[in-house]
Amino acid sequence: MVLNQILDSDPNISGLLEIAHQLADTAGEIALRYFRCRDVGLANKDVTGFDPVTRADREIETRLRQLLGELRPDDGILAEEFEAKPGRSPYTWVIDPIDGTRSFISGTPVWGILIAVNDGGSIVLGMIDQPFTGERFFGSGGKAFLTHRGETTPQFTRRCRGLGDAVLFTTFPEVGTSVECEAFRAVSRRTRLTRYGMDCYAYALLAGGHIDLVIEAGLNAYDIQGPTGVIEAAGGIVTDWRGRPVLDGGRVLAAGDARVHALALEVLRSSVDGENQGGRA
Amino acid sequence: MVLNQILDSDPNISGLLEIAHQLADTAGEIALRYFRCRDVGLANKDVTGFDPVTRADREIETRLRQLLGELRPDDGILAEEFEAKPGRSPYTWVIDPIDGTRSFISGTPVWGILIAVNDGGSIVLGMIDQPFTGERFFGSGGKAFLTHRGETTPQFTRRCRGLGDAVLFTTFPEVGTSVECEAFRAVSRRTRLTRYGMDCYAYALLAGGHIDLVIEAGLNAYDIQGPTGVIEAAGGIVTDWRGRPVLDGGRVLAAGDARVHALALEVLRSSVDGENQGGRA
Repeated sequence: MVLNQILDSDPNISGLLEIAHQLADTAGEIALRYFRCRDVGLANKDVTGFDPVTRADREIETRLRQLLGELRPDDGILAEEFEAKPGRSPYTWVIDPIDGTRSFISGTPVWGILIAVNDGGSIVLGMIDQPFTGERFFGSGGKAFLTHRGETTPQFTRRCRGLGDAVLFTTFPEVGTSVECEAFRAVSRRTRLTRYGMDCYAYALLAGGHIDLVIEAGLNAYDIQGPTGVIEAAGGIVTDWRGRPVLDGGRVLAAGDARVHALALEVLRSSVDGENQGGRA
Repeated sequence: MVLNQILDSDPNISGLLEIAHQLADTAGEIALRYFRCRDVGLANKDVTGFDPVTRADREIETRLRQLLGELRPDDGILAEEFEAKPGRSPYTWVIDPIDGTRSFISGTPVWGILIAVNDGGSIVLGMIDQPFTGERFFGSGGKAFLTHRGETTPQFTRRCRGLGDAVLFTTFPEVGTSVECEAFRAVSRRTRLTRYGMDCYAYALLAGGHIDLVIEAGLNAYDIQGPTGVIEAAGGIVTDWRGRPVLDGGRVLAAGDARVHALALEVLRSSVDGENQGGRA
């Protein structure tokens, strides 16, 4: 509660944040029961490729929907595994029970539980929780925090003036379509360092001021709203590749500093300009 | 001590293992003082590229050399930052104070402290320590363990019969030379899933039975001896791309199951056969 008061004096937002913590606690406990177990209950929901869904994903989402049904029955829910639930309040909970399922099934500690609340127009709070490392990044109203080993510390994105100084992350080297991949590479070639494989953990590192850019394509709303809430609260900026808000997913450019955001945006925009399309779901 | 007795009844090896734990404790403490600090003291030892060396690397190696000088004055030392020290005993300590410096400076939790002891011909013990997650993987004499949150559990690689079932890791998508990269891709195309960016943590995941293959090129002795000690003790196999021992580094193929090792080796070997060269330092 002390923390909630630090984070936001609006009792409405404080109440939502308290529930977000409760959801993350519940989700983390379930996720850790399945993490690194030999039988994770893989199903394959994409017959043409490899899109694993674990029992953990489904069990978490089911439990969080139950909890929200009890605690916030009027709010909407948009989450990865089951159908969206329309709300009667201004608020929608946007949840990815396990972002980075491929990371999860490979035993790496860089998957996460993503939680956001939006009011229809903008993100009210965001959370990235990594239960194995015990890190919870969350933010609202211009303030972001990391809770780790019982300590809660403010999080700030770092300054970065140019692409030549920037550390860039993305999850897969094959970013989106061939045009998207070439746009990504055009930015990557200009940066100091490009790294791969971090899933949502890269957004947490951006919010904490450890890296400068994350670029991805083909995201869903539940992949990006939680991270956006944290990054914006930490002083960063998250848009699509044309500089517009990115609540619905698609192509994402996240930066810790508006200057390096503008420079990366220029490269991405000119790379996809020939496409004659405005966006992508 | 109980654990040492579990691991190896040879008092000589138990003594070495006890010292390895002491070195890892010391190294982890120093590393965590620098990890995610805004000023990590980056120097650039490679003027043509980006090869960061942190103060943490140098401070750890200096301290570990001091400790070994006191505890094992006759043993040799081969480590990343400073000159090799020839020994007067059969044993050499092979140490990478921070494997994955790029991961370290980006705040990710997948770098590690690598420690091995070899007797001139083979690896006597290996250790991969990740102090931020608090995981220590170590192995000797056919037994491997993970210590995490006060619990020590045996580690075993997992069965994997074919490339189509395999999860493959490497650190950079640009693996080595163009020939090496094409060889890597020839294996990657045949696997179920390929992931990037895990540095030495990928070898720990292999030893723990969470993934099946790690393929890398251009490694040094101190990059691979620690992981090899753990993986072999967990039931896995680590060779170069022609199936030979890989103590000196170079091209590495690590597998949890001899069957998938043989299949990956066949692809790698035929991909580099045209080169007319036996190996690479």
